Amino acid sequence: MITRLTVIGVGLIGGSLAQALRAAGAVEQVVGCSRSRANLERALKLGVIDRFVQDPAQAVQDADLVFIAVPLGAMRDIFAAVKGRLRDDTVITDGGSVKGSVVADAQAIFGHVPARLVPGHPIAGTEHSGVEASFPTLYRNRRVILTPLSVTDPEALDRVTRMWRSCSAQVTTMDVAHHDQILAVTSHLPHMLAFGLVDALARLRENDEIFRYAAGGFRDFTRIASSDPIMWRDICIANREQLGEMLRRFGDEMLDLATTIRRGDSDHLLEIFRRAKDARDRYIDSTDS
Amino acid sequence: MITRLTVIGVGLIGGSLAQALRAAGAVEQVVGCSRSRANLERALKLGVIDRFVQDPAQAVQDADLVFIAVPLGAMRDIFAAVKGRLRDDTVITDGGSVKGSVVADAQAIFGHVPARLVPGHPIAGTEHSGVEASFPTLYRNRRVILTPLSVTDPEALDRVTRMWRSCSAQVTTMDVAHHDQILAVTSHLPHMLAFGLVDALARLRENDEIFRYAAGGFRDFTRIASSDPIMWRDICIANREQLGEMLRRFGDEMLDLATTIRRGDSDHLLEIFRRAKDARDRYIDSTDS
Repeated sequence: MITRLTVIGVGLIGGSLAQALRAAGAVEQVVGCSRSRANLERALKLGVIDRFVQDPAQAVQDADLVFIAVPLGAMRDIFAAVKGRLRDDTVITDGGSVKGSVVADAQAIFGHVPARLVPGHPIAGTEHSGVEASFPTLYRNRRVILTPLSVTDPEALDRVTRMWRSCSAQVTTMDVAHHDQILAVTSHLPHMLAFGLVDALARLRENDEIFRYAAGGFRDFTRIASSDPIMWRDICIANREQLGEMLRRFGDEMLDLATTIRRGDSDHLLEIFRRAKDARDRYIDSTDS
Repeated sequence: MITRLTVIGVGLIGGSLAQALRAAGAVEQVVGCSRSRANLERALKLGVIDRFVQDPAQAVQDADLVFIAVPLGAMRDIFAAVKGRLRDDTVITDGGSVKGSVVADAQAIFGHVPARLVPGHPIAGTEHSGVEASFPTLYRNRRVILTPLSVTDPEALDRVTRMWRSCSAQVTTMDVAHHDQILAVTSHLPHMLAFGLVDALARLRENDEIFRYAAGGFRDFTRIASSDPIMWRDICIANREQLGEMLRRFGDEMLDLATTIRRGDSDHLLEIFRRAKDARDRYIDSTDS
């Protein structure tokens, strides 16, 4: 049981955690903290939080668990604000989509990575953002990756693991660099392709007509291009090496594919499309169950 | 009212047209034609067609309307098979995703583009294929683009327009090259990105792990990579110039984006993501209504 949970950044991710824990009876009190007072008032009205404090230093007072769910670019300022204000036994975790940058920010502010900081990432979300978009079942059957370091307190890791399990999430651990590499491929790269495609179309002269003739597949394909731009800017910057490399490779592959198509190489095209269809159908079979 | 409709290629597209026309009471008899006898037997059992004939030359006998819904690579053979077997007043139309190649195939086989051939393209589909995937409401509120030529008989165009309207589709006309350009951007290019991404992941060594951590956004993003590989090979070949050029431009844009990310150019990234989100949110608003 969590006695006092402080959620810093009460949006889709933070708000959904608060709601899930409350629905599971796993938390007594939820304190919200955010830069926007209007946002906190909405969260209070929606019953997502019990009370709010705008100053992070005060918000973490007497919290036994702190969840930071702000865009990655704001993480360092939050660490700076709460430094020296936490109880010795307070466990901190976060929901950032890149773990290397969170660890580097902690190192920069605290001079070391605190033993009771458990870097984490729930692999869940929708293209919507804000506390109005949060809901208690967001994490049900979703994976949460925790990336503890050698200095991480096992008891802190255990607390965070239990917190996510009470939201019905599946918790796994892996190292920081591996997490950032896997996410670069499965999440960050697809978002870049969707943003890039929609942006390219938006810049075409006849873009009204083009969007008019886009079919249902296009709607699904580009859904993630409606995601929060600031969050994604920060993810790109935080994972710039891995993502930059993936994107460079993908760009080269698209140029190769352009050549294959222009050359009319039917066999090679069929091979690519078959391998992709097989992989996706297999992946869907394995996740539909 | 259509007295006898012959559907050549009884899959998702052909089967759905037959079902929609029947549901609207707009057809008396549907004759199915396909290379696969097993497929025709399924179509008969499902009530999609009234009877079947495997030979296209016989299948079109006494048809007043012929709908060709085969992969683009098979179109020329179908034209060759039905040449000289059609009644003078029979109207032919098709469902091919590229119109330039259909017109070129007709020209090659008939020596000219027949006045009663109305090239068409329903902008509808799912990632599933085959007659089992067909359903009567596939075309409801979907756009159908017809690309008549100067030689096209206005009465034939009118018959095909009425046929699609009785399926509750919205019919528009445009010229062949314009159609192929718009579809290259809104449909063919997104399919290449989805196939390309899934294929790239499938070829990675740790691909099991990667697919395991792919989130919901990835599932939506890659849905179209489960589409029929043969159909897509043919689309690529048929629209190779336009699609090759789009893909080359997109590949270059991804390389630029890779550089922007590596350089850490936050402002530029935010500008791209905002423009994309605005465009998509606007597009969704306009199509949700």
